[in-house]
Amino acid sequence: MLTAEIIAIGSELLTPFHADTNSLWLTEKLNSVGIEVKLKTIVGDDDARLEETLRDALRRSRVVITTGGLGPTEDDITRKIAARALGRRLLLNEKVLEDIRAKFMRWGRKMPEINTRQAMVIEGAEVLDNPNGTAPGMYLEHEGRAVVLLPGPPREMRPMYENFINARLAAKAGDLRVVRRVLRVVGLGESAVDERIAPVYTQYQNPQTTILFNRSEIEIHLTAQGKTEQEAELLLDGLAGQIEERLGESVFAFRGEMMEEVVGLRLAVNGFTLAVAESCTGGLIAERLTEVPGSSNYFKEGVVTYSNEAKVRLLGVPADLIGEYGAVSAPVAEAMAEGVRERAETDFGLAVTGIAGPDGGTEDKPVGLVYIALSDDAHTEHRKLLLPGDRQLIRWRASQAALDLLRRRLI
Amino acid sequence: MLTAEIIAIGSELLTPFHADTNSLWLTEKLNSVGIEVKLKTIVGDDDARLEETLRDALRRSRVVITTGGLGPTEDDITRKIAARALGRRLLLNEKVLEDIRAKFMRWGRKMPEINTRQAMVIEGAEVLDNPNGTAPGMYLEHEGRAVVLLPGPPREMRPMYENFINARLAAKAGDLRVVRRVLRVVGLGESAVDERIAPVYTQYQNPQTTILFNRSEIEIHLTAQGKTEQEAELLLDGLAGQIEERLGESVFAFRGEMMEEVVGLRLAVNGFTLAVAESCTGGLIAERLTEVPGSSNYFKEGVVTYSNEAKVRLLGVPADLIGEYGAVSAPVAEAMAEGVRERAETDFGLAVTGIAGPDGGTEDKPVGLVYIALSDDAHTEHRKLLLPGDRQLIRWRASQAALDLLRRRLI
Repeated sequence: MLTAEIIAIGSELLTPFHADTNSLWLTEKLNSVGIEVKLKTIVGDDDARLEETLRDALRRSRVVITTGGLGPTEDDITRKIAARALGRRLLLNEKVLEDIRAKFMRWGRKMPEINTRQAMVIEGAEVLDNPNGTAPGMYLEHEGRAVVLLPGPPREMRPMYENFINARLAAKAGDLRVVRRVLRVVGLGESAVDERIAPVYTQYQNPQTTILFNRSEIEIHLTAQGKTEQEAELLLDGLAGQIEERLGESVFAFRGEMMEEVVGLRLAVNGFTLAVAESCTGGLIAERLTEVPGSSNYFKEGVVTYSNEAKVRLLGVPADLIGEYGAVSAPVAEAMAEGVRERAETDFGLAVTGIAGPDGGTEDKPVGLVYIALSDDAHTEHRKLLLPGDRQLIRWRASQAALDLLRRRLI
Repeated sequence: MLTAEIIAIGSELLTPFHADTNSLWLTEKLNSVGIEVKLKTIVGDDDARLEETLRDALRRSRVVITTGGLGPTEDDITRKIAARALGRRLLLNEKVLEDIRAKFMRWGRKMPEINTRQAMVIEGAEVLDNPNGTAPGMYLEHEGRAVVLLPGPPREMRPMYENFINARLAAKAGDLRVVRRVLRVVGLGESAVDERIAPVYTQYQNPQTTILFNRSEIEIHLTAQGKTEQEAELLLDGLAGQIEERLGESVFAFRGEMMEEVVGLRLAVNGFTLAVAESCTGGLIAERLTEVPGSSNYFKEGVVTYSNEAKVRLLGVPADLIGEYGAVSAPVAEAMAEGVRERAETDFGLAVTGIAGPDGGTEDKPVGLVYIALSDDAHTEHRKLLLPGDRQLIRWRASQAALDLLRRRLI
């Protein structure tokens, strides 16, 4: 199996604040074409250490990928040091310089002089165009090694890898194909999931199964190897089917989709429309739904009613009801869902009211108490939740539970 | 300055699913006592590569910390390979073995034979007790280097470091203290920021300056060393002041605060209230504002008016206006801001309307065209933006620009 090494470059990656996440994405891509990542190094804007790291990597690994350090500032040393480690010259490429100038022109600005640095190219390297930034990448073959220099920002790095590198490395790797599938689960804990599906997945070496706890979701990662993608996909189909049998509707995604995509697709194919009324989630549900392209076809409006007065005025929740039960209560959640549906004239109304904390909890109504409600023209239902976690996590979990309530109605 | 190197050991850290986060925690600890992390390596259960990594680290760095690979299985190679790299023997420590046996006894189980491996100790190493697991850690000094072997699980690694290592390394580091500050910038590009402040920050070795591009924001990281924290803080004050002089109001945070926190604080201290009307941002502005604890004191309500009909009904935008100028236009943005402010009876109304893409753009109104508007009882203003990026980034940038418009009004 072909082995690769990833070097993440940038002093910010040696602070407590920034983890290198580019390498996770790259590892997924490399693995999928049968290339194994054997070592990762994170190095700062430090000439000597980067040079040593590059030299070591070139000696050990057939594929060496760097991310970062291609910016226009003095701290961006990747070009210079990679050239040194490879024993090649660094030359100004006039065409690249023109491209960068043209980009700035399109943005209505003059190219700052320091960006000239980004037009320096290692002798013999192929320039990789960067549609989302000014820093071009580079690819070269050096003594039987594939060397790839990519920019650090994921929005620049990813398309560059997909467009110019993926197919090339796949060709080098040969016939092994690795395919991965992510199933997402809602409403079950990690050990509950494992108990139900361990009897199935432990019988297989291929596909391999990993259960991950990601934020408030359980993800089941299946990885299969085959001589072709089709062969690997068939193996995945077999195991995924058995897992679905054991977990039922708790599996909401079979291809790594987000909850808002799954719900959006079901609304779209049925021609249904939705309006959302939020209190403690503060716009998060609307934000998640509208992150999906094309959501304007089914998402009509959202209201964030933080104040009681807004619940009355914007949703027609009776002030008496709030007085009697409190804003965080089942009757108010249901009235919010009904109110937003009726006023927006949509097929569904979804509502959340709760206490996200850190303050505002009482003995009767503690932080984490959340009511979600769903209304259509036939009936209205609610769920009472007691969610663990901090403010952010409670809001996320509440949004997830609300979207899941709608998803199950749409099945 | 004392330099450290962190080696994370474990094949799971070379999959797409697991980032090494132990090193972030360790870096924070090391930095605070004046030890700089110069390199991080992530290596699998691979004898040769781990040995090479350890040898390199021992040659380069005064402090070498490993995490992981101290478990009882064959894959747990840290003990064996560290002994080899150090040229020392690995010896069975009877007392450690007794401790491990006693732990299993307390859990009501017999110690599995393989756990004997965890009682193997490098010659001359001090054993570090593990209250939360069976794997003891090790500390040794080797040719002027401090070598620390810690277990991988954070709940075992962290207390071990705190209890046995932190004070020891602080003593080695001497009197140096390191303090860090993060300035955040809005409305200027990376190169523009660098051009303006490079003449200032390049004059200083201490504090050190790093400019980062994080999503749509520029962050300026300042790191200062001093004999005391106060001394380091004074150095930071000096440089931060000069940077502020050159960037002015474009610096919105001096202590790493988020835009929504800065805006929220200004609203709160002035006793102002806010309502938000969103189209293309789909609830993102409301969501960001309400992520801040205590935001209910100033954030009163938000509406997400995806449909024209909702803009008319919920905000009182005249249908004629939409007909004449289109939903994505300056007059409609201003009418949205005025409408939400008047209806919510707040001091400020903030509105966004635009085209986030990927579809919906035209020649006249391309993807990325966004109008933001701000209204108070004296006047209403708008800005026209042409934002680059994909749907997610356009939405984020639009939300950032809108919040910034309000921030500048509040200065």
